[in-house]
This record gives sequence, C-alpha cells and structure tokens, in this order.
Amino acid sequence: CNPQGQTIDLTGILERLNAGEVVIGDGGFVFALEKRGYVKAGPWTPEASVQYPDAVRQLHREFLRAGSNVMQTFTFYASDDKLENRGNNLKLTGAQINEAACDLAREVANEGDALVAGGVSQTPSYLSCKSKADVKAIFRKQLDVFIKKNVDFLIAEYFEHVEEAVWAVEVMKETGKPVAASLCIGPKGDMHGVSPGECAVRLVKAGAQIVGVNCHFDPMTCVETVKQMKVGVEKAGLKAHYMVQPLAYHTPDCNCQGFIDLPEFPFGLEPRILTRWDMHKYAREAYNAGIRFIGGCCGFEAYHIRAIAEELAPERGFLPSASEKHGSWGAGLEMHTKPWVRARARRDYWENLKPASGRPQCPSMSVPDSWGVTKGHADLMQQKEATSKEELEQLFDKSKTH
Amino acid sequence: CNPQGQTIDLTGILERLNAGEVVIGDGGFVFALEKRGYVKAGPWTPEASVQYPDAVRQLHREFLRAGSNVMQTFTFYASDDKLENRGNNLKLTGAQINEAACDLAREVANEGDALVAGGVSQTPSYLSCKSKADVKAIFRKQLDVFIKKNVDFLIAEYFEHVEEAVWAVEVMKETGKPVAASLCIGPKGDMHGVSPGECAVRLVKAGAQIVGVNCHFDPMTCVETVKQMKVGVEKAGLKAHYMVQPLAYHTPDCNCQGFIDLPEFPFGLEPRILTRWDMHKYAREAYNAGIRFIGGCCGFEAYHIRAIAEELAPERGFLPSASEKHGSWGAGLEMHTKPWVRARARRDYWENLKPASGRPQCPSMSVPDSWGVTKGHADLMQQKEATSKEELEQLFDKSKTH
Amino acid sequence: CNPQGQTIDLTGILERLNAGEVVIGDGGFVFALEKRGYVKAGPWTPEASVQYPDAVRQLHREFLRAGSNVMQTFTFYASDDKLENRGNNLKLTGAQINEAACDLAREVANEGDALVAGGVSQTPSYLSCKSKADVKAIFRKQLDVFIKKNVDFLIAEYFEHVEEAVWAVEVMKETGKPVAASLCIGPKGDMHGVSPGECAVRLVKAGAQIVGVNCHFDPMTCVETVKQMKVGVEKAGLKAHYMVQPLAYHTPDCNCQGFIDLPEFPFGLEPRILTRWDMHKYAREAYNAGIRFIGGCCGFEAYHIRAIAEELAPERGFLPSASEKHGSWGAGLEMHTKPWVRARARRDYWENLKPASGRPQCPSMSVPDSWGVTKGHADLMQQKEATSKEELEQLFDKSKTH
Amino acid sequence: CNPQGQTIDLTGILERLNAGEVVIGDGGFVFALEKRGYVKAGPWTPEASVQYPDAVRQLHREFLRAGSNVMQTFTFYASDDKLENRGNNLKLTGAQINEAACDLAREVANEGDALVAGGVSQTPSYLSCKSKADVKAIFRKQLDVFIKKNVDFLIAEYFEHVEEAVWAVEVMKETGKPVAASLCIGPKGDMHGVSPGECAVRLVKAGAQIVGVNCHFDPMTCVETVKQMKVGVEKAGLKAHYMVQPLAYHTPDCNCQGFIDLPEFPFGLEPRILTRWDMHKYAREAYNAGIRFIGGCCGFEAYHIRAIAEELAPERGFLPSASEKHGSWGAGLEMHTKPWVRARARRDYWENLKPASGRPQCPSMSVPDSWGVTKGHADLMQQKEATSKEELEQLFDKSKTH
Repeated sequence: CNPQGQTIDLTGILERLNAGEVVIGDGGFVFALEKRGYVKAGPWTPEASVQYPDAVRQLHREFLRAGSNVMQTFTFYASDDKLENRGNNLKLTGAQINEAACDLAREVANEGDALVAGGVSQTPSYLSCKSKADVKAIFRKQLDVFIKKNVDFLIAEYFEHVEEAVWAVEVMKETGKPVAASLCIGPKGDMHGVSPGECAVRLVKAGAQIVGVNCHFDPMTCVETVKQMKVGVEKAGLKAHYMVQPLAYHTPDCNCQGFIDLPEFPFGLEPRILTRWDMHKYAREAYNAGIRFIGGCCGFEAYHIRAIAEELAPERGFLPSASEKHGSWGAGLEMHTKPWVRARARRDYWENLKPASGRPQCPSMSVPDSWGVTKGHADLMQQKEATSKEELEQLFDKSKTH
Repeated sequence: CNPQGQTIDLTGILERLNAGEVVIGDGGFVFALEKRGYVKAGPWTPEASVQYPDAVRQLHREFLRAGSNVMQTFTFYASDDKLENRGNNLKLTGAQINEAACDLAREVANEGDALVAGGVSQTPSYLSCKSKADVKAIFRKQLDVFIKKNVDFLIAEYFEHVEEAVWAVEVMKETGKPVAASLCIGPKGDMHGVSPGECAVRLVKAGAQIVGVNCHFDPMTCVETVKQMKVGVEKAGLKAHYMVQPLAYHTPDCNCQGFIDLPEFPFGLEPRILTRWDMHKYAREAYNAGIRFIGGCCGFEAYHIRAIAEELAPERGFLPSASEKHGSWGAGLEMHTKPWVRARARRDYWENLKPASGRPQCPSMSVPDSWGVTKGHADLMQQKEATSKEELEQLFDKSKTH
Repeated sequence: CNPQGQTIDLTGILERLNAGEVVIGDGGFVFALEKRGYVKAGPWTPEASVQYPDAVRQLHREFLRAGSNVMQTFTFYASDDKLENRGNNLKLTGAQINEAACDLAREVANEGDALVAGGVSQTPSYLSCKSKADVKAIFRKQLDVFIKKNVDFLIAEYFEHVEEAVWAVEVMKETGKPVAASLCIGPKGDMHGVSPGECAVRLVKAGAQIVGVNCHFDPMTCVETVKQMKVGVEKAGLKAHYMVQPLAYHTPDCNCQGFIDLPEFPFGLEPRILTRWDMHKYAREAYNAGIRFIGGCCGFEAYHIRAIAEELAPERGFLPSASEKHGSWGAGLEMHTKPWVRARARRDYWENLKPASGRPQCPSMSVPDSWGVTKGHADLMQQKEATSKEELEQLFDKSKTH
Repeated sequence: CNPQGQTIDLTGILERLNAGEVVIGDGGFVFALEKRGYVKAGPWTPEASVQYPDAVRQLHREFLRAGSNVMQTFTFYASDDKLENRGNNLKLTGAQINEAACDLAREVANEGDALVAGGVSQTPSYLSCKSKADVKAIFRKQLDVFIKKNVDFLIAEYFEHVEEAVWAVEVMKETGKPVAASLCIGPKGDMHGVSPGECAVRLVKAGAQIVGVNCHFDPMTCVETVKQMKVGVEKAGLKAHYMVQPLAYHTPDCNCQGFIDLPEFPFGLEPRILTRWDMHKYAREAYNAGIRFIGGCCGFEAYHIRAIAEELAPERGFLPSASEKHGSWGAGLEMHTKPWVRARARRDYWENLKPASGRPQCPSMSVPDSWGVTKGHADLMQQKEATSKEELEQLFDKSKTH
C-alpha cells in the first residue's frame, strides 16, 4: 500500500508498537492555536492549515522537538458537512484544508523521525441521523486526500458514539493503512451507554489495530477508561494496541460528557491546566497500564509532551531534543539567581507540591451544566444539529433563557 | 534597516502617548518560549534569538496579530555578565544575541504598525556590588547594539532596585531615544524599601518619559503600584506617561519579592494563569487609572493581549487582527455543537464565572518561601551572585538542607 | 415488662413506624460532650453519665427540645471489656454507667414524648477474636441493665462487622424488646466486604425490625448506603424499617473506613461541619428514600436536629419546641440590626449559599491516611486490640515512626 | 463597695492583672445558646437567663471548667430600648433579665475562683441619635442591677463607635467598680474612622482600666488591633491593661464591619470555625503581644477556652479542670482503637495540619456583602434603627430587592 515508502513501512506505527516501543503522540492543535489567534472557538475548524501555515508548522515543530513521534494532520472537523454547517465564510473546501494539513505534517515529520497520521472525527451528518452510507461518504472524501498524500496511518478520533467510529474504521480499512480508533468517552462509556470494554471490542472487530480514548477527560480518567477497554478486548480473546490522548485539564467533577459540561469550558479552564509534574505521573500510569501510544489532546502544549518523553526516557533510552532547554525535575533552577529558588531544583519538591490557584473566591470543583445532565442526550443530539441557521438561533435563544 | 527613520518618529511612542492613544505592549517571551522548548528555566537567557529565530519570530507575530503595538527585542538578561555567569556554553556573545533579536523584532514590527523597543534589565554586576561605572558599561554595550539597529525607543525593565534602574536610564538618555523605565516591584516598593512613588520620581528626574512596573505581581497589584507611582510623580510636580506589564498569574499571596517567593515558581504556576476575562478587568482597571502603555510579562500569551485590545476597542476604535478568530465575550460559541455551550455565548456568563481548579487537594493560597522572608534581602543579594561556581554550589547545598 | 408504662407501649417505636410516622433521633453525645469537657477523645467512654449527670441531662434536653423522639442512653463503648481496656481509672463498672445513663435518658424522655433506647456497640472482645459466646456475654451484661431499667427499645449501633452486629441482635431478641441494628459502614459494605444489602438481610433475618447505618460517613453517603440496604431487604422478600444517623461532617474524600481515616479526625474536623441548611437537604433526601427513623451521630448538635424537624414539619404537622427560638429559613433575621443582614431572611439565600472556609491555605479535600488504606484491615484489627498495655505502646511507637 | 465580699476584692480583676496573671475570659453565649435552642438569631436577646436558667448555668459551668476566670453576665443587648425594639413578646423587663443573669453568673463563679463581670453593649438609642443623656440613662438602668447584685467588675463591650463606649465608661466609673471597655472594631478603627490607637486613648482617658476588642474579627485580626491600641496608649504616655475576646471564626475576607458583612453570617459560618490548635496559636500570639485578659466571643465553645488555658499552662502553672478529659496536643489518642489514629497523638501532627473543608464546590474566601460596603455607614445607621415596625418592614422590603 505504499510503493515508494518502504523505509517508512519498516518503522511504521504497527512495527513500532509490535516491537514494544513507546510512541509519543502530539498535543491539541485546536486549543493551542485558539490561544495563539488562529482558530475560532465554537466552530473549532482548521482553516488555519491553509490560512496560516507558518503558525501550524511552528506548532508541529514544537511537538516534534518535545518528543512526539506522530504528527497528526491538522484536520479536526475538516469534513465538508462540518465546514458548511459552521459558517465557513472563507469558501475553503475540505479537500483544500486536508491537503494543506497533510503537507505541513509531512514537512515537519521529515525533520525528525515522526510518522504522519491522517485524522477524521465525528460528523454532523451522523448526529443529524444521516444514513450509514451518507456518513461513510463523508469520511471517504477526507480519506481520499490522506491516501493521495500518503499519510503513514489513520486515526478515527473524537467519537462520542462507537457506532459512528465503527463506520469510520470500516471505511479506513478499505485503504490498507494501519488504523487507530479513539473515542472521547470516559469510564461510563459512549453516549448510548456502551461500556468502554464493549466499545473497544467493536472497534477491534471492525479492524482497528490500535484503540483508545482522547479528549473530554483528564489523564487519569482516560487511562482508567483505556484499562477497561483492554480488559474488554482481552476477555473477548482479541488483541490490540492501546492509545491515550487526554486533556491537559483536571476534570474530577465532570459528567459522562466530559469537560464540555463544565461551566469553565472553553474559556475559563486555566486553573485546571496540568503542570509538567502531573504529566510525569500520567505518563507513568499510562505506561504501567500497558498503553504504548501516549499523547495529548486539548490543553497539551509542547512542555507537556516533553514531560512524557522525559518520564519515559529510562524506558526509551533517550531524551527529546527540547530537553536541551530543560533540566530534569527542575535541575535548571540550580542556575537561578535566588538561593531559595535554587533549593527547588529537586524531584521531591515538585512531586509533592500542591499548587495553589491564587483564586480564593473560586471553588476547587464545579457543578457540571445541569441542562446537559437533566435532559436526555438523544433529545439534545437531535436538537443540536438542527442545521438550518434559524433553527440554531431559536435553540440559542431558548438556551439563553435557561 | 531604517537609517533615516523619520516616518517612525512621527508616530513614535511619545507622540502616540502624547496624543492620548492606548499603546498595547506584548507578552512574556521567556515563559512562553520555555513552554515551547526554546528557553531554559533557571538561566532564563535569550540565546533562542540566534538559535531558533523561527520560534521567536512566530511569537512576535502572535503578539502583533493580537494587538501589540510594541515589539520588545528578545534580549532579557542578554548582558555579557549575565550570559557568562549563567553558563552560556553556546559561546554566543551578548552582541550576537542582541543584534539577532533586533532584526527579528524589526522584521515583524514592519508587518504591522508596531514600534521596536530595545530592552535592558538588571545585571549581576549590580547585585555583586560592582561600581556604578562598571554597571553602566554593561548597559552601554547592549545599547550600542540597539542604536546601531535603530530601535524606536528603549526600556529599562525588571529592576528590583531603583538605584540600578536610574543608572540604566542615565545611560539610555545619552542615546537621545525615548526612555521607559519599569521596575519589578509591588506596592511595598523596591528591595531597599524605596516606595513606588519615590521610585517613580527618581526615574522621571533621571530622564525617563515613561515609568511603571512589570513582572513579579498580578495585574491588579501592578496597577495599584503604578497608581502610587502616579501619585508620587504628580505630588512632586513632575509629568510622565505610565506603563504596566504584569504577570498573567494571580498572586494574592506573595511577599515583596513577588511570585519568585511562591512555592509554585516557576514550574507549578498553571492554576494561577489568568483567563481572558480576568484580562478584560485588568485592561479596564489600568485604563481607568490613567495608564496608557498596557501590556504583559511572564505568563501572557497572545490571547491575553488580544483580550486587552478587545476590552479597549471602544476607546481605540478598532479590533486587533486576531479578533477575526474570536467572537467578543464568547460570541463564537453560538456556533458550538452543544446547545448548553451555546448558552454560554454571553458577557455576563464569563464575567461572573468563578473558575474551579479541579484540584480539590490543593489550597487556593500558598505560604511564600520562608527563607526569602525571614532572611534579610541584602544578605541574600550578596550571597546570591557569589559568582564563582563553587560558591554557587555551596549555597545551593545549604539551601537544600533548608 | 412495663407494668406502669402501657401508654408508652401503645406508641412504641414500632407502632410509630408502622403508622408511617417520622421518628427523629438524637445527635452525637461523645463528640458534643468532648467539646464541652466531659468526654475524653481517644477512649471515648461515657463515664460522664455518672460523673457529670447535669451535663449529660442538659444535652438530652437540648435534643428533646430540638425535636428528638428518641433518647439514646449515653452508653457508647460502656461494655466492661472496653472500659478496662481503655484505662478506666475511675473504677466505675459498666453496670454503674449503664444504670445512670438509663435514668438520665428516662428522666428527660418523660419531659416530652420521647422513647428511651438502650444502645450497645462493637466490643474489643470481638476485635480480639474472642468466641461468639464470650462476645454475647459482654452484650448480655449491658442488656441486663437496660431490661432492669425498662428501656423502650434496643439499638445495636456502630458495628463495623455485620457478624458481630448479628450476634448483638440475637442477644437483644431474647429480651422481647424491639430491636434496631445500625452499622457504621458506607456503600462499600462492612470491613469484611459484605455489601450493605447483604448486611441488612442478615440483620433482618437475625430479628432486627429496624436496620440502617450510623456514624463514619456524611449524611448523603449514609442515605445512599441505607438505600442499598433497602434494595437488598426488598429483593430478599423481607420487610424492615430503616434508620440513618450520620455524621454532621462532610466526608466526600474518605475511604471505606470513613472519617477515622481522614487526617482531620478527630481534632480538625471543624471546617467540615454541616450547616443547618445542609441538614434540610439531608432530611428531605432521607425521607424521600423511605427512611423514617432519621437522626444524627458525631458532630450533630441540637440545631442540626431541629433543622431535620423543621424540614419535615409539613409531613409531621408540627414544629419542635426549639423553633420558638428559630425562624424557618432564617426568618428571625428580619429583626437584625443591619438592613443587609435582614435581606438574608429568605430560603433561597441560604439554600444557595456556598459557604467559604476562611482558610485559603487549606485544601477542600484531604488524602485519607495511607496506612489504613494500604495495610490489610484484618491485620490491623489483630494488631489493634493487642490488649496488653505493653503491646499497645509498642504499636503506638511503631505508628509514630510512620 | 462589697461589704460581704472582701475576699473576692483581694483577688479582683485589677489585682490579678497588676500581679501579671493571665485572666482567661469565657466564650460567646449568644451563638452557643442559639445552637442549643435558647436564643433567637436576629434579635439575639438574652431572655434565656429567665426562661431557661439550667441551659445558661450549664454553659457557664462549661467555661468555668475549661479555665475561664470571668463569668460574664448573660446580658448582651439586655437594655430596655433594645428589648422593646426587638419584639420582646415575653414582656420581660431588662431588670428581670439582668438580675437573673447576675444570679446565674455568681452561682457558677462561686463554684470556682471566677469573677463576675456585668456587661453592657451598644444601644439602639445611640444608633438612632438619641442624646448623650438619654443613652447614659439606658446604661444606668442596667448598671443599677449590676451594683445591686454586686458584680466584681464591669465591661462595656461590643461597641462599634468609640463615642458611645466612652459614654458607657463614664457611667460605669460612677459605680467605683473596675471598668473594662471593648470595641468590636478591627485595624481600620471604629465606624466613624477613629483608629484603634485613638479609640484606646479616649477610653483610657474616660477611665477604663482595661481596653481591647471583642467579636467581629478572627483572633489574629483582633490581636493585631489590640496591638495598635497598646501602641496608641503608650505613645500617649498612658497606662492600661489589655483584653481580647475575638470570634472563633476565620475571617480573612471581611471588611471594616467584620463578619456581619460576610455572606455566611450568621447561619453558614461552620466552615470557618477555629480548631483547638488554631486557639493555641491565638493564645500564644495574644500573650506575646502583652495582652493578659484573653477570652472569646461568638463561636467560642468550652474546648476553645480550654485550648487557651492549655497553651498558657506553662506560664500559669496549672491546667484547667476540663483537661482531666483532654490529653495535651492529642495525647488521649494513644488510647484510640486504630493504630493510625494513635499515630496522631503528637503536637507536630496537629500544629501542621491544614484541615480540609470537605466542600469542593465552595470557595475559601467570600466577597463581603456589597451593600454594606458601598453605602455609607452613617446612612445605614440612620435607616437601620428607624424604630417603628412599619419602617423596619419597609427597609426589609427594600433590602430584599437588592
């Protein structure tokens, strides 16, 4: 399936995982580029791949330098149905965005030893109850670009419903590329109540070689969810590799729909951002759980990925390039001006720190949005993508009075 | 690259401030580039201007796009004494770094209407009690580069002692460029106990046309400090413009030395990061206090600067470029998938949110490092830059047992 | 067995519960009297019934006045084996204490319409693996007093092991008095891992007419546990009445052994004390769960019991005596001096208040004691009551080095 | 002035303080009896002295046993103008209440070596701008009872305005009894902005031999305020003894009017209650500040007073009676059942504990009520005691719409 690319095949994603290697993923483009000014929160679509290639390239480079072995194409929500639905007034086609994103990912991947992964995510078409054939057609359009651009493997990620993820995997399998499938679910399972174990079994049976979760929950919750997937897959007598790409936000207080329901989403999440030391614990926990594709999603920045790479350096035998600018466990502080800051240049200091928020009038946990909780999910799903602009506005008005 | 530079003079920093314009500063390069993998915490020196120009240029661009009118050269701690002292094993001279930084700042400034400011900061020479002449010589070396590269104005920033800042201003005045002077102090004054009002008077008398504070404290504390400066300057019958470039961290719990003393410095500050809505309040408060040069320091990212520009858009008459990707007060959420997230697309929602930390086992305030507090500052200052490597290590060992 | 007291029999505990009445329990004597200076934390034994009858009588009266329908004899841990083991240097026998406690409870009960309940609790004999016969003999000694003093019914409470509670119920049944059985367990079941549902079934089969939980967990956790008991009993085709007497402390962060494991136990629990408004929610939740014997344990003071009685006043048709000094939902504040305090005289104000701790350097949740968690419970149990004084001290020394 | 009581005169309050003794005050009757069901929050008046003497006597006894050397008569707000204004539908006269309160205090004082202090507090008459003569007449009526009952000394306490306190002191001086004067102010001074130092000077000049503060603020704030009083008195070349009787609530977040403005006042203060270990720190701090009359106000219970007495036992040479039931620094836990609780029987454990609130959805600091802050105090004062019932209701309605 990759006539020219044999060298890449030799160290493809499956070969690496089969060999027991740790593969480090990248971080969340949508959130990082939103803060930098290149993505709009709300639509969350990746026009920046065409509009601001320098910004996207720079972010790829930061993750590569931090230790990422996978450059995911910046194609989140880049299906035509989504782009139209979300008021894409740039008149960019999905194909244009997907192509540009592939080129940027490949350019930076080639600066190191990283693989390029083409990603598709859940579609408005599914949520508005289009047919299986229609939804698959949407995926196929994106995958055509990925094949043309010869990505190294495919990821179906950010699916709330395992059914739609299975459809994506089925289309992906047609390409012959290795397939990873990642749901944005927690320990309570998908939005129809299918447990993580059962979700994983269905994805593996559909042909995914790598299964796991991304986004929506904090690292420890995601690792717990993947553990359940692993138990399910093993109980079913199946085999798979496991991946995890969680939020870089602490979310102990969220419901089955994850951080979306938290009142801080998406513009007040700062106090929840994980420190690099939290990432060390996460990386270790994921590794101990048998997960070997370990990365991040929304909120992850380069230094979070570097922390994963530094934690697992003993197992992997090397540090990432960016450790050039980072002493392990704060060792760089030995060069700090103040002696009492130099005294912090040690592992136990940072491992045991309970960092304060500096916000005494704020709580430590929130109450998740009650609407999402009390109303049935299915109802909301049907309302949600009501699709005509007027309907959207009506919904919005209604929700305002809430 | 601009030998005559008259056009820039016509809209120079003083002309803008004299005309009553709001001038928006940029954010903190050292912290942002540390997270991206290009600066080492501890030394905090800016070799990246030479080593990783793409990364530095991209950060300049983000701030420009977010609304910054000033590109500060990335020359923090780039004096020769500091570079040597901090183990500069790249063998880059101060001149090399300062020149490269000027070129990058100018390149991006010219992509918009921004000014280039050459910055000097406090020196190890002063802290180790070198003579006034020696310290001035250090500044002069950096300023030579700034004049050669024809920056638009000069900033003496991050000074803990007004005495050293006055020396810097005196050297800067020799160049004929407009001079801004910014101390890293809080309401209790400088490290020798000189009050903010008195500090400001001394700086204005030394020739600074713009005075204010940067770093070390959160926005509201910094605005309060500049207010005291203004009162002092006005009481003395003097005139000045005012600037403020605070941390993007909440620091209600720190001592006179600011966030350095907090146990979270520098690797556990995440829960303290200000939201964009906190920045709206800051920008309004600074504006109401009569401050017209409003920017940021450590922790500020592009979206924080954009929030300042959006808050002050009614006064300024325009939005920054990056607002293309940002609906005011969360308006972009009207396009979000979930109806209950769409319900958050309104100002009062975000203005009143008390964001949770997701860290129930962490406090909301810390106890500042007791060593810094209980030991006399002067003692520590003399110890601090003990200057031989052995002495440093001895100090470090001592502090570890603390 | 009560020749004079037929009227009381007519409205005994079972008659009341069978009639659908809400029976309100009392609060925690051990903790309240510890704060008042009459009980020693550590041994927790009730010598005060003999030593300080006025103090015990006054506390009974406060609960009666607050609405309690049950006066529990202050006989917690008043078994001879416990009194000896805990260094009872007053040389009071269990019989003396139990008799005095019965007299005090009866005296105050007769001032209203309350019932007297004689209580036994878990014994050192069980924990140090004495025989069933030995343990039963311990209970029998206390029960002899209760029968002599003609209490109205019996409660076996504060049992961590359902096995021992079943033994207690078996002995109690011999007396012919109504029997209630209450474990100090949470949703994870007893210390041998028996689920709440199964525990309840065993107790009902042993003859308890009322089953439930007390102590160790906060109100909502206790109600949840009793709900599970009810499901278990109903699934088994049995019938019972249900009781709940929780802590007046918020304990969202504790393990299976409850608040004992929290680092704040027993001298730092203040920030966790429930408000009267928390008690309204608890009372409603317990009522809605079908529980009709609703009281409190450690931390409950009279105003907490009054809040239960006020919340359930609509169902019961009357307010308690102490409401003479309490306007519902803060109505008394209408007479406050300050107008802005008068503005708080309304239900929604207090229902929605999120009370601050005034302790910004403290967390909102603790990490339970790791020793209790990591060591096996059975191991600890055997160590614990090692019984000779020397062994105790050795254990204590060991634990100190922990 | 005390024909029968010479022995008591020999060790009167001034003799004790002059001899350098520590005199321990009692705790807050109003709040403690509100929780027990005998005082109504809002009016806060002490009818219980007549209605429920057993309850009042028992509380006196608890404080005596805990170490109090002063039994304050339970006569707070027992002036006739207050009793009428607050809807005293029991038709009890001030004289009846004051007499009963004196008898109870004396009865219990005689059970130990305590002194009886007759207390007057601020009056509605002053707040509604009655004349100095009218206000003094009010005080005189209460004092007539105190003299008739031969109390040992007098306390003017809980005054927000030093002017009214001076009037009270002037009337008290006429009796020849020793006079203490205590304001409910913080470091910012009284409600007319008179500084603590100046307040103290005026009170001493009016004849008070003991000056200090009570109520409204937490212990550390109160000690700080008394320190300022001491500086003021000493600067003025005067001499006095000092007293402090603070809240048992942490109030780092309140305004000049203290805990009244906190949204938790008075029914949600539980999370702020000080532990016994907080009291150790307070007692030490007060002692070190030179304060020798150290007690408590609202929120203080017997165990808080005992903690003061235990902390100062080395200086005083003895423990209070209630220490019979309390091992110092948790030593009693050596007898606890669980080994990991036994491990808490040590001073450093409790001294360093940062107790959690168990309330992750609550903040650690509140925003004080904005009405009290933004409106002028004088305005409110005039509104406040508008005195006719209708006016009160109008005010209340207005405040509700707030």
